[in-house]
Amino acid sequence: MEKMLVFGHKSPDTDTICSALVMADYQKKLGKDVKAVRLGEPNKETKYVLNYFGFEAPELIENIEEGQEVILVDHNEFPQSVDGIEKAKIRMVVDHHRIADFATAEPLYYRAEPVGCTNTILFKMYKEKGFEVEPKIAGLMLSAIISDTLLLKSPTKTAEDEEAVKALAEIAGVNYEEYGLEMLKAGTDLSDYSAEELISLDCKKFELNGKQAKVAQVNTADIPEMMKRKAEYEAAISKDIEENGLDLFVFAITDIINSNSQAVVLGNATNIFEKGFKVTLEDNTAFLPGVVSRKKQIIPVLQENA
Amino acid sequence: MEKMLVFGHKSPDTDTICSALVMADYQKKLGKDVKAVRLGEPNKETKYVLNYFGFEAPELIENIEEGQEVILVDHNEFPQSVDGIEKAKIRMVVDHHRIADFATAEPLYYRAEPVGCTNTILFKMYKEKGFEVEPKIAGLMLSAIISDTLLLKSPTKTAEDEEAVKALAEIAGVNYEEYGLEMLKAGTDLSDYSAEELISLDCKKFELNGKQAKVAQVNTADIPEMMKRKAEYEAAISKDIEENGLDLFVFAITDIINSNSQAVVLGNATNIFEKGFKVTLEDNTAFLPGVVSRKKQIIPVLQENA
Repeated sequence: MEKMLVFGHKSPDTDTICSALVMADYQKKLGKDVKAVRLGEPNKETKYVLNYFGFEAPELIENIEEGQEVILVDHNEFPQSVDGIEKAKIRMVVDHHRIADFATAEPLYYRAEPVGCTNTILFKMYKEKGFEVEPKIAGLMLSAIISDTLLLKSPTKTAEDEEAVKALAEIAGVNYEEYGLEMLKAGTDLSDYSAEELISLDCKKFELNGKQAKVAQVNTADIPEMMKRKAEYEAAISKDIEENGLDLFVFAITDIINSNSQAVVLGNATNIFEKGFKVTLEDNTAFLPGVVSRKKQIIPVLQENA
Repeated sequence: MEKMLVFGHKSPDTDTICSALVMADYQKKLGKDVKAVRLGEPNKETKYVLNYFGFEAPELIENIEEGQEVILVDHNEFPQSVDGIEKAKIRMVVDHHRIADFATAEPLYYRAEPVGCTNTILFKMYKEKGFEVEPKIAGLMLSAIISDTLLLKSPTKTAEDEEAVKALAEIAGVNYEEYGLEMLKAGTDLSDYSAEELISLDCKKFELNGKQAKVAQVNTADIPEMMKRKAEYEAAISKDIEENGLDLFVFAITDIINSNSQAVVLGNATNIFEKGFKVTLEDNTAFLPGVVSRKKQIIPVLQENA
């Protein structure tokens, strides 16, 4: 059996990868040997972050053995976790999402708070224990919060996220506004991704009142440029729907400069999307003014209307 | 709509009632108006505690309205919670049990730790915020930890529980060993309870691999005296099994002085119990040496053998 493992969700984003690395560091300070791993390829934004602060990406794993001890960060829902999670021993969870499709046989540490980023909670945990945060660890935490809150512009941002960003930028020794914009822009260079990759880079699966749905999201500084490849997205989404028996696929292309999204939506349950957002899809797409947060502005709308 | 409510599990024990009162106090210190309520009659031990430290029992509620904002303490599994919980807005949970049959639509505060008592976590939360703990609030916390850990003798007890007991006894101004024994003894005066009351005073419902099970527990200083009424327990348990379609009912009569239990076990799935504890029930009963904790020593054994 491997030593204890810590990982975030499938289709890893910056918060998920940084949370795993930071949690491994936190556990080391507690005297415990925990290994950070990942469930997928880091995106370009995350690679920029790892490179900037001098980290290697954690090792990739595909599944885990029965009885493996694990820590989950930045997720809890089993469909978003590693294959085999049902048979693992989950010792700890640190997360900022709703709780669903999650269960353990034994008591555990579970820390969730409704803040913008898992790393905001992790930073608090260091402070509660009186642990020093090294500059490069602060860099990971800072990057994760900037990523999840779109440089503090997302409606998921809380006062605690903002305070954490300011304190962490000081420790990491960076100007967070300049660094953050560079980091977000690094993530919007999507030209060399295939359509299949784009719809799975940051994709989460949900059950909506018995229906199977996926909501994928990419960040961009130029929606019209991205929409030139719409036919490719439609083909990739239709293939995913057919292969995985999905009822709904929402692909949100989010403009991080102007804080809007263009959605490409397919499936037999697009009426949930239309009802929820009070729009009529034209040619499988709709513009969603002011919508940037999947968690706060897309998932709840779909759930309430499913 | 009522203001935000905080409550523990059905068949309330001392930790559940004290946790609700303490959480209401904690929220008040945060500037929030939260009302402590209860889902059942406090037991004699809890009444002793409330009387000793000068508290009224919280108000009884039977169910809650759709959309009611709530805080859960000392439980999370919906079958153990208030009727209507599925439609409530759960804003916070503080608990020390496994997580199961629990889900929310939105992110929330969730704080679970594998310690002996919810109040050990609550005491930590006061300290993290720098809140002063008033002597009578310390009395509630102390009583809950003594109750859940059987005066620090249960295998569920952790070093954190022990430290908390010592610190809280000082704040509350009581000798915790003397007070604790009096408090536990107050809970063992079971002579004027009916058998129906005894099997439901501290009773939790679980699903065991698709089978419906209940495990009830009472504390005593005299097992033989308690077992004089065995026929009454059997009748009450059989009635509950029939009325609620149960597969297994375990009634543990726990000797808090010598740390053993006598179990009265009925249902069509008693083989799970016999297999788990490697005993043969004689006349529906078996002695379990060293077993005092439902959470650590009974539930996991049943689960592993279901």
